[in-house]
Amino acid sequence: MSRFWSPFVKDLVPYVPGEQPKLARLIKLNTNENPYGPSPKALEAMRGELSDDLRLYPDPNSDRLKQAVAGYYGVDTAKVFVGNGSDEVLAHIFHGLLQHDAPLLFPDISYSFYPVYCGLYGIEYEQVALDEQFQIRVEDYCKPNGGIIFPNPNAPTGCLLPLQAIETLLQANPDSVVVVDEAYIDFGGNTAIALVDRYDNLLVTQTLSKSRSLAGLRVGLAVGHPDLIEALERVKNSFNSYPLDRAAIAGASAAFDDRDYFEATRRKVIESRERLVEQLLAKGFEVLPSAANFVFARHPQHDAAQLAARLREQGVIVRHFKQARIAQFLRITIGTPEMNQALLDALE
Amino acid sequence: MSRFWSPFVKDLVPYVPGEQPKLARLIKLNTNENPYGPSPKALEAMRGELSDDLRLYPDPNSDRLKQAVAGYYGVDTAKVFVGNGSDEVLAHIFHGLLQHDAPLLFPDISYSFYPVYCGLYGIEYEQVALDEQFQIRVEDYCKPNGGIIFPNPNAPTGCLLPLQAIETLLQANPDSVVVVDEAYIDFGGNTAIALVDRYDNLLVTQTLSKSRSLAGLRVGLAVGHPDLIEALERVKNSFNSYPLDRAAIAGASAAFDDRDYFEATRRKVIESRERLVEQLLAKGFEVLPSAANFVFARHPQHDAAQLAARLREQGVIVRHFKQARIAQFLRITIGTPEMNQALLDALE
Repeated sequence: MSRFWSPFVKDLVPYVPGEQPKLARLIKLNTNENPYGPSPKALEAMRGELSDDLRLYPDPNSDRLKQAVAGYYGVDTAKVFVGNGSDEVLAHIFHGLLQHDAPLLFPDISYSFYPVYCGLYGIEYEQVALDEQFQIRVEDYCKPNGGIIFPNPNAPTGCLLPLQAIETLLQANPDSVVVVDEAYIDFGGNTAIALVDRYDNLLVTQTLSKSRSLAGLRVGLAVGHPDLIEALERVKNSFNSYPLDRAAIAGASAAFDDRDYFEATRRKVIESRERLVEQLLAKGFEVLPSAANFVFARHPQHDAAQLAARLREQGVIVRHFKQARIAQFLRITIGTPEMNQALLDALE
Repeated sequence: MSRFWSPFVKDLVPYVPGEQPKLARLIKLNTNENPYGPSPKALEAMRGELSDDLRLYPDPNSDRLKQAVAGYYGVDTAKVFVGNGSDEVLAHIFHGLLQHDAPLLFPDISYSFYPVYCGLYGIEYEQVALDEQFQIRVEDYCKPNGGIIFPNPNAPTGCLLPLQAIETLLQANPDSVVVVDEAYIDFGGNTAIALVDRYDNLLVTQTLSKSRSLAGLRVGLAVGHPDLIEALERVKNSFNSYPLDRAAIAGASAAFDDRDYFEATRRKVIESRERLVEQLLAKGFEVLPSAANFVFARHPQHDAAQLAARLREQGVIVRHFKQARIAQFLRITIGTPEMNQALLDALE
């Protein structure tokens, strides 16, 4: 602690991201990246930006990207917000829309960045327990609150909440913003963006890091009522006028435009997941039903931390969380068939 | 105003960046971009990142870039912080280091984003008047404060405060962080990074948008005592783990490594400025002494707003601020000799 710090800094507990090892030869199944590269059209669009024009600022509004997203989902561009990864988008949401007197609600087992944002912006929160099958119980969120946020599919469980349940939640909380964090939605669910025109309290976030294979580019987005988007634009324009660089705007737009590549790669990931689940079950694992590009699994006879350490010795990294209720689970990203086989071999 | 907004949002007055026109044929002298493109080695390094590896997250710590900056300035990497443009770096500085009971001090004529950050983070501030020659008077900052920040050279005036005056300021304010915002330092001043090893209350920020011609890439940095950097890392890791994408880390590192290109282009800009100043003086303009890649000038016989409008009609954009004391000035970015000649022709 230094006398120069703003007082809140000493109590900050920063988020700890999954390891990004600098050794290339590891089979990396720990941070839910896509095993396939980005759309070749996205790479080509980015290459086109690497010219002397990089001396010029990018479009501060990223209009081209907003149009690509709006076109893809059939919504108005005034309902689209974009940022430097969905983590930045979520930060602006916590700051601009979730700082109220009543506590913010989110699941006890969920994206571990949520309580960190609350610490950053001084937001009171209450963690609502998942049920014994690790599912969100909508009725538990029907109480006074200053907002609701959850990943769908949930992370790190992979479990999906159906759109119907989300509608119930929206109707029960007309005076709260309900944020549906859809980082993994393309691997097995229907997006709540379909409900945005009917609910002014719904905000949906997505990332290009998973289903669009662009974790290395840092682009995320939110879709919701223009009043919600306006709050985010005000915060963004009071923080950093130009959050997306020229290559990111071009590459992300092209990735949204290349629907064929997106469909082909996400289908491959889904098929690999279904096969890996069968194989893990055959090895005696218990696997939660996953709609994401990872599975959350435990083995009744093996300690999860030891399993993770043993896998690492054999060059395979998965993610283990030391948190109560899930300390015996491993979160395993879906790789290519070859990567998944290497995992299974290492589990022998 | 929506009932969903966090209360502070309704009073936010966002920053308004200079226009980024979508018409390519304008002579753009309004946002202080470099008229020369980035280092070819930086472009090559970025191209090398546009591969399937973009599916993977970048290094959350941007170690390669921190090493390049640390090597360039001969400081320890623990004294270097990097972010998504110096605007993001400044935002984290305001949040993590400048939120104190006593008011933050900055010049009345200065970077207009400073009061915006104060609005975003609820920071009290006091604007200290420049003297009649538009210079910072160090003695005016010797009073109780919760921090001091100023651009050096100042923007939009271009005037430089010598390092000796900065030392006086640091010694007079041992319990306050003094932030020297050096966006333009490479065009005519000596960096205060030279003082970082001797003053634990000094933090220096820089950007790659100006002297390194990478406004379109979004990279900025801060150098200071490790205790100050730790506050910034805590805030950054509670906001967005991966602020810099893979291309940005590689391109910015290569730009710092390519000293020859940097020296050659900044020298050309400085020479063009000296020549443009002479030509503007010959046309009857009053020009403040500039150490930046822009000049701040007024003409006793012509209204500045009208001049800016007239220039725009002829395809030349400069920046005009409607603020008291400087409403009769134009801020003119230094272009190539051809761009500067186009400006002079348009002024005929």
